[in-house]
Amino acid sequence: MFDDNDRLMMQNALSLAWQGRFSTSPNPRVGCVIAHGSQIVGQGFHVRAGEPHAEVHALRQAGAAAKDATAYVTLEPCSHYGRTPPCAEALVHSGISRVVAAMTDPNPLVAGKGLAMLHAAGIQIESGLLEQEARILNRGFLSRIERRRPFIRLKCAASLDGKTALADGSSQWITGQAARHDVQILRAESCAVLTGIGTVLADNPRLNVRAFPTLRQPARVILDSKLQTPPESHVVTDGSSPTIIATLVDDENRHRSYLAHSHVRIIRPSANRHGQIDLHDLLGKLAELGFGEVMVEAGAILTSAFIAEDLADEIILYQAPKILGNPGRGLLTLPENPSALTQSAPWHTAAVETVGNDVKWTLQRM
Amino acid sequence: MFDDNDRLMMQNALSLAWQGRFSTSPNPRVGCVIAHGSQIVGQGFHVRAGEPHAEVHALRQAGAAAKDATAYVTLEPCSHYGRTPPCAEALVHSGISRVVAAMTDPNPLVAGKGLAMLHAAGIQIESGLLEQEARILNRGFLSRIERRRPFIRLKCAASLDGKTALADGSSQWITGQAARHDVQILRAESCAVLTGIGTVLADNPRLNVRAFPTLRQPARVILDSKLQTPPESHVVTDGSSPTIIATLVDDENRHRSYLAHSHVRIIRPSANRHGQIDLHDLLGKLAELGFGEVMVEAGAILTSAFIAEDLADEIILYQAPKILGNPGRGLLTLPENPSALTQSAPWHTAAVETVGNDVKWTLQRM
Repeated sequence: MFDDNDRLMMQNALSLAWQGRFSTSPNPRVGCVIAHGSQIVGQGFHVRAGEPHAEVHALRQAGAAAKDATAYVTLEPCSHYGRTPPCAEALVHSGISRVVAAMTDPNPLVAGKGLAMLHAAGIQIESGLLEQEARILNRGFLSRIERRRPFIRLKCAASLDGKTALADGSSQWITGQAARHDVQILRAESCAVLTGIGTVLADNPRLNVRAFPTLRQPARVILDSKLQTPPESHVVTDGSSPTIIATLVDDENRHRSYLAHSHVRIIRPSANRHGQIDLHDLLGKLAELGFGEVMVEAGAILTSAFIAEDLADEIILYQAPKILGNPGRGLLTLPENPSALTQSAPWHTAAVETVGNDVKWTLQRM
Repeated sequence: MFDDNDRLMMQNALSLAWQGRFSTSPNPRVGCVIAHGSQIVGQGFHVRAGEPHAEVHALRQAGAAAKDATAYVTLEPCSHYGRTPPCAEALVHSGISRVVAAMTDPNPLVAGKGLAMLHAAGIQIESGLLEQEARILNRGFLSRIERRRPFIRLKCAASLDGKTALADGSSQWITGQAARHDVQILRAESCAVLTGIGTVLADNPRLNVRAFPTLRQPARVILDSKLQTPPESHVVTDGSSPTIIATLVDDENRHRSYLAHSHVRIIRPSANRHGQIDLHDLLGKLAELGFGEVMVEAGAILTSAFIAEDLADEIILYQAPKILGNPGRGLLTLPENPSALTQSAPWHTAAVETVGNDVKWTLQRM
């Protein structure tokens, strides 16, 4: 069904798609290659929402050469009129004879209709080539559609002895500059960065990308059940990206000073039985808002809550070759887990590498 | 002075020397290549104490072809009659015209005399080629001679959240089988494995190499200030390698039951001001006994003591992608160290890799 040239072309399309990793949110990352055999006549990737899809860029480049060519797309072409006309229609008009998709689009607005439209026009359609790689490319988008919650990445940093701060909470500069730069890349890839009110009060973070220029800043999500975010804090006053404050406070008078900033939005997830924000309900609301990849950069308690609720898909742990000492604060605040000694690990070591003098450990759910 | 061919030949000699990494203790690891230009006519490495040195193996292989050849040796040839005749003499008799050594031998029995003997016989001598690599090869041997203490490697294992055991001390199977196999390799490379009486009482370990056949087992060193090692414990009854019990107890009647085993030896280091075994004095005694590379496989308190006394040269931390929970026992028991937040790390991340599903992090002193 697929030969080596097909795989090579789809790999090219995937590489193109990754070029949109910082900018397509909330849209999926998509790449497209148009070729006659191994001769590429057009290629493109989706840059950002509201702008042309990958197929349109590739078709424009191919021009008349698209006739009787094969189009390789990392995601089923769309079939609906959104902010741009349907790509399936453009492919039909181009004279393309065969379309290979890495995967169908789970978005109910598409969900097979794009391929069906192509098939109805007499184009040979095939799907499933390098599907696993295509799913990794868009794991946030897919999670939002299929699981109705974002893909959750927990970012943590600790010392060699597993501490995040001294006993009094001081924690500046545990990891080095290279690790902090790496976090900026992860932020740029995220639809949103999520933290707790504790971090806002302690550090007044901006939670944005400053190390390099980017077309789009991640949104900021603040878990603030009692609505204690200072009105003068960076996440409220800095309008470079949306801020979502999730709170249990329903008094709209108290919302008003935040909502005076047009980039600030308040959402009210339900409370759990402990009177805290219910993380499952929160994540459902974030998916509805279009957030696919969310990175949690929070303290030990909130980070641990995501693990305890089985809502973490990936952990990135940066560890510095420093020793903070036993009285320091631990990485997590989870209860004792004797089953860890007898059962195999629920996490898979997906990668480990040095970043400067620090270690970056990527763990994914088994 | 040295050309690319010289470097290539010395690299070969270093690779040969590493083949003796499990067996030469207490002797250094040494490799030798005899060549005419790039044509190798003899090569060898030292296998174990009492058996021929590297040069002798290489000269035997070269035979008459040694005449006018260059000998590359990773350590200055010996000049004294030990258990074997001096290699410098054998090189002179062979008709070799040039000897390149990676480094001089700091052993006061040699210390330049080997090269001087060759020079006096009209052989061209050069030293210092790939010296840094040669020093790493024998860092235990060099530490024993130059610092009068062994090279100390601390082996630790912890969970993702920096715990070594549950609150009650249970700790079986934190890391996986691949990591445990890796520790067997490190044991085989060590002159001795050191642990505390706590580990002996809790686990009754053998501290030997079982995963593969080896010509030599590491010695076992037990820190047992009050002489509580059970006479029926494996380290006392298993005579496959020497056991050194370091104690503060001077009552020789209490030594007797241990000394009934010919492989058991008791040493009495001095006490420090806390009434514990003084680690500096202990390490001096271990160096005198010929131990160059010592791996510490101990609990958090003893491991931490080596760090606190600035006696650790390398830390190997195996970390499993498991979460033991906050009440668990920490990796180390060191006091709070605020300077870690402001100063650069005193440890260098020398390597990090996956071992099975676990992470192996190698840290060395800056």
